[in-house]
Amino acid sequence: MGFITNDHVISHDDDKTSLVSRVWCWLHHLPKRLVAKVVGIATMMRNLARDDPRRVIHSFKVGLAITLVSLFYYFQPLYNSFGVSAMWVVMTVVVVFEFTVGATLGKGLNRALATSLAGALGVGAHHLASLCGKIGEPVLIGLFVYIFAAASTFMRFFPKIKARYDYGFLISILTFSFVSISGYRADEIVELAHKRLSTIAIGGSVSLLINSLIFPVWAGEELHRSVATNMEKLGLFLEGFGTIYLKSSEGEVKSKDGNKTSFQGYKSVLNSKNVEDTMANFARWEPGHGRFRYHHPWNQYLKLGGLVRQCAYRIDALNAYFDPQTQKPQKFPEEIREACTKISLESSKTLKELGSSIRKMTYPSTSVNAHIVSSKAAVKSFKTFLKSGSSYNQNAELLQIIPIATLASLLIDIVDCTEKIAESTYDLAILAHFKKAKIKETNVVEKSKPENVTKHEAVTNNHVDCPQVVITIAELTLITSNSSAQGNYVDAKSDGQHTLDD
Amino acid sequence: MGFITNDHVISHDDDKTSLVSRVWCWLHHLPKRLVAKVVGIATMMRNLARDDPRRVIHSFKVGLAITLVSLFYYFQPLYNSFGVSAMWVVMTVVVVFEFTVGATLGKGLNRALATSLAGALGVGAHHLASLCGKIGEPVLIGLFVYIFAAASTFMRFFPKIKARYDYGFLISILTFSFVSISGYRADEIVELAHKRLSTIAIGGSVSLLINSLIFPVWAGEELHRSVATNMEKLGLFLEGFGTIYLKSSEGEVKSKDGNKTSFQGYKSVLNSKNVEDTMANFARWEPGHGRFRYHHPWNQYLKLGGLVRQCAYRIDALNAYFDPQTQKPQKFPEEIREACTKISLESSKTLKELGSSIRKMTYPSTSVNAHIVSSKAAVKSFKTFLKSGSSYNQNAELLQIIPIATLASLLIDIVDCTEKIAESTYDLAILAHFKKAKIKETNVVEKSKPENVTKHEAVTNNHVDCPQVVITIAELTLITSNSSAQGNYVDAKSDGQHTLDD
Repeated sequence: MGFITNDHVISHDDDKTSLVSRVWCWLHHLPKRLVAKVVGIATMMRNLARDDPRRVIHSFKVGLAITLVSLFYYFQPLYNSFGVSAMWVVMTVVVVFEFTVGATLGKGLNRALATSLAGALGVGAHHLASLCGKIGEPVLIGLFVYIFAAASTFMRFFPKIKARYDYGFLISILTFSFVSISGYRADEIVELAHKRLSTIAIGGSVSLLINSLIFPVWAGEELHRSVATNMEKLGLFLEGFGTIYLKSSEGEVKSKDGNKTSFQGYKSVLNSKNVEDTMANFARWEPGHGRFRYHHPWNQYLKLGGLVRQCAYRIDALNAYFDPQTQKPQKFPEEIREACTKISLESSKTLKELGSSIRKMTYPSTSVNAHIVSSKAAVKSFKTFLKSGSSYNQNAELLQIIPIATLASLLIDIVDCTEKIAESTYDLAILAHFKKAKIKETNVVEKSKPENVTKHEAVTNNHVDCPQVVITIAELTLITSNSSAQGNYVDAKSDGQHTLDD
Repeated sequence: MGFITNDHVISHDDDKTSLVSRVWCWLHHLPKRLVAKVVGIATMMRNLARDDPRRVIHSFKVGLAITLVSLFYYFQPLYNSFGVSAMWVVMTVVVVFEFTVGATLGKGLNRALATSLAGALGVGAHHLASLCGKIGEPVLIGLFVYIFAAASTFMRFFPKIKARYDYGFLISILTFSFVSISGYRADEIVELAHKRLSTIAIGGSVSLLINSLIFPVWAGEELHRSVATNMEKLGLFLEGFGTIYLKSSEGEVKSKDGNKTSFQGYKSVLNSKNVEDTMANFARWEPGHGRFRYHHPWNQYLKLGGLVRQCAYRIDALNAYFDPQTQKPQKFPEEIREACTKISLESSKTLKELGSSIRKMTYPSTSVNAHIVSSKAAVKSFKTFLKSGSSYNQNAELLQIIPIATLASLLIDIVDCTEKIAESTYDLAILAHFKKAKIKETNVVEKSKPENVTKHEAVTNNHVDCPQVVITIAELTLITSNSSAQGNYVDAKSDGQHTLDD
C-alpha cells in the first residue's frame, strides 16, 4: 500500500464513494423504476384490451371452459366414468380453444377425426404385430411407427394440407404412436383408444359450445371486415393526398403536417395477405351464421384482397410525394392540379363507398359508378389538356414535368385498380347474395354524368322497380368501360391470382 | 302404364339405356381415373421432394426420433423408471420436432420452462387449496385455474409474447391445470410434476439432438438465404426488363415472350414479410453455428428485407410495362432507351452482386459501388438530355411522353432503393463480421468512373492493403452520395421500420 501515491488513494476513495453512491442511487430509484415498469405493462395491457375488447372476453371464456371441464375430476359420478383419462378433456380444451369459432372448429374436427382414424390404424397395427411373437412385436410396431410418422410428416409439406389439416396430421402421428406402442404394455388398447376419443369429443364440444355461444368471434366476419377496412384505408390515404398534398402544393399553409400519419394506415394493407389467407382457411370450417352461409364465397374475398394490395403498392409509390422533407411540392399548373385532385378524391370516394357497401353487405350504390366515371372524366380532361399543347407545354422544361407526369401516371393506374376492385366487389355482391341497394343518388349522378353514361343511367331509371336488372347493367357498364380502358395497366386479375397461388 | 304414349315409352327406354351406359362408362373409366389421380399425387410428392430434398430428410428424422424414444416403452429397465409416463416422451417428440433447429429449440425450451414454472405454481396452488378443507379445496383450485387460464390467455395477445413465447403460455395453462387439478385425486403430485418435467426434458433433448446433428436446417440460414435470393430475384427482373422489354421496344423480334414468366419471381418478394419475421424469431433461439454467431444481427436482415420489399413494390409498378397484350411498347428516342437500359442493367447487377455477397458472407465488392455510380451517371445523362431540349423535346407531344417519364421515374426510384439496399447490406456486413472482399475490380471501375468518384477511388487504391479503410470510405461514399440524391424518394429507412413494427 506504501507504493500508492496520494492520487491513487484519492481515486481509490473516489471509486469507493462513487460505487456506494451508485448503488445507493440505484436502490433509491429502484421503487420508481419498478413502478414505472408496472405502469408501462399496465398501460400496454389496457391498450390491448381497449383496441379489441373481445380479447378480454376470450380470456374469460377460456378460463370458464377449463374450469367447467375440470368438474370431471371433482365430481365423483363423472370421475367414475373416465378416471385419470378425464385429464384429456382438460387438455383438449386448452389446446383446441382458439380465438375464432372457425379455428376452434377446425382444430377440434382435425383432432377428433385424426384421433379416430389413427386410433383405428393403431389398433390394427398392434393386432398385426402381436401375431409375430414376443420378439417380432416391438420390431414390427417400431417399423409401423417409423413409416407412419415419416409419411405423415411428409404429407404436412403439401401446401393445401398444411393450410387446413396440419394439426390433424400432427395428432394422427401422436395417436398412432400412443395406441400402437401402448398396446405392448396395456391389454385393453381398444378401451384406451375409445377413452381418448370420447374425452377429445367432450373437450372439443365444450370448447365449441362456449366459443360459439358466448360472444362468438367468426373468422369469416374478420376476413369480411378486414377487406372492407383495407379499402377504406386506401380511400383515406387518397383523400389525404387529394386534400393535403395537392392543395398544399398550391402554396397553402402546411399546418396539417401532423395529420400525415393518420393517412399512413394503408401500410398495413401491404402485408395483409397472410392474415387474410389464414382467416379464409378458418372461415371455411364455420357453419352458416347471420348473413354468412356455409358456402360463402371466401375465395372471392381473397381475390379482392389481392386487388386491394395491388392498389396499395401503387399508393406506396405515390406516398413518396407525401414527405415534405425529401420532396418539395411541385408547382402544378392549375388545370393539372385540379385534375389530379379530382382523380384522387373521386377514387377515394369510390374505395370508401365500396368498403362501406361490403361492410353493410349491400350492392355498391350507383354513385360508385358515378365516381368512377367522374374520375375517368378527370383523367380524360387531363389528357386533353396535355394534348392541346397549352402554354404550360411550351414553356416548361421536360425535366420539370417528370414528377408531375409520374404522379399523374400513378393516379391513372390507381383509377384502373379502383375499377377492378369495383368489378370484383360486384362479383362478390352477386356470389354472396348481398342486399340490393336503394337507388337514391340518381339526381346527384345526373349532375356530373358525362355523355356516355346517359344511356345506361336512363335504363337504370326506367327499371327502378327491378333492381336485379339495374345491377346487371351497372356491371356491364363497368366491364365494358374497363376492357376499353385497360391501357397502361397489367392484368390485375391474373396478378391477384398469382399472389394467391404462391 | 296404359296412359303412357309411345313417345314416353321410348324416352323412358332411352333414359334407362343412357343411365346404364353412363354407369358402364363411369366404371370403365374408373381404373384410368384412379391411376391418373395416383399419378397426380405421386407427381406432386416428387415435386415437393425435388424442390427441397430436406423435406424428405426431415420426415425420416421425425420417424427416427419417435421410434428411438418408443424404446422407453419396450425396454424393461427404461420402462421401470417412468412407467406409463414414458408416453410423455413420445408426445414431446411429436409436438416439439420442427423443421428448423431454431423452431425445435424454441418450442422445446418453451415447453420445458413453462412446465417447470407452471408445475411449481400448480403444486403451490394445490397446497394452498388443501388447507381449506374438503369443500373449499375444489372451489379454490377452480378459482386458481380460472384466474391462471384467463391471465395467461390474455398475455398471449401481447405481440412480443405471441412471437416467441406463445407455445410456452399454452403449455403453462396445460401444466398448471394438470398438476393442480390432479392434486385433488392423486397424492404424489410433486412426483407427478417431476415425471412430467423429466419426460419432457428427455423428449426435447432427443428431438434437439437428432434435429441438429443429422442434416440440420437452421432458421437463421434460411432467413439469410431468403434475403439474398429476394435481392437476386429483383435483379433478375431488372435484367429481363433491360434486355427484353427495352430492347424489344426498339422493334426487335419479341420471340422471347415466353421468357417473361421467368422474370416474375419477384412477386413472391411482395409477400415475404411473414416468412422472414417467423424465421428471425426462430433464428434468435439458435446457438452459434458455422459463421453465424449467437447474437447474429437478425434484425438487420429484417430491415434489409423491408427495403427489398420497398423496391419490389416499385418493380411491381414497373411490371405493368412488361405485358405486351395491354401495353404497346413505347417508341423511345435512342438516348432515353439507352439510359433506361443502362439504369436497369446496372441496378440489376448491383442487386445481384449484393445478393451474392450476402450469400457468400463477404463484404460487397467495390464493383457494387461502381455499378451504383454508373446507374446514377445514366440517370444524370438522362436528365441532361431532357434539359438540353433536344429535337425530341420540341416535336413530341406531352401526352406521348407520360409513359416514358413514368418509366424513367420508376427506374430512378429503383436506383435510390438499390442504393439504400447497398447501404443496409454494408451495415449488415459490418454487424455480422462478413469476410473482407478481395479488391480486384479496380481496373474495371476506373474505366467507367465519373469525376466525382475519382477522389474516393484514388483513396481506395492507396489503401488497397488495408481493406477496413477501403470499406469505411466506400461506405462514406455511399452515405454522402445517398444523402445528396434523396431527391424524389421517401425515406425508406423509416418506411422499412414502419413495416417491421405493424
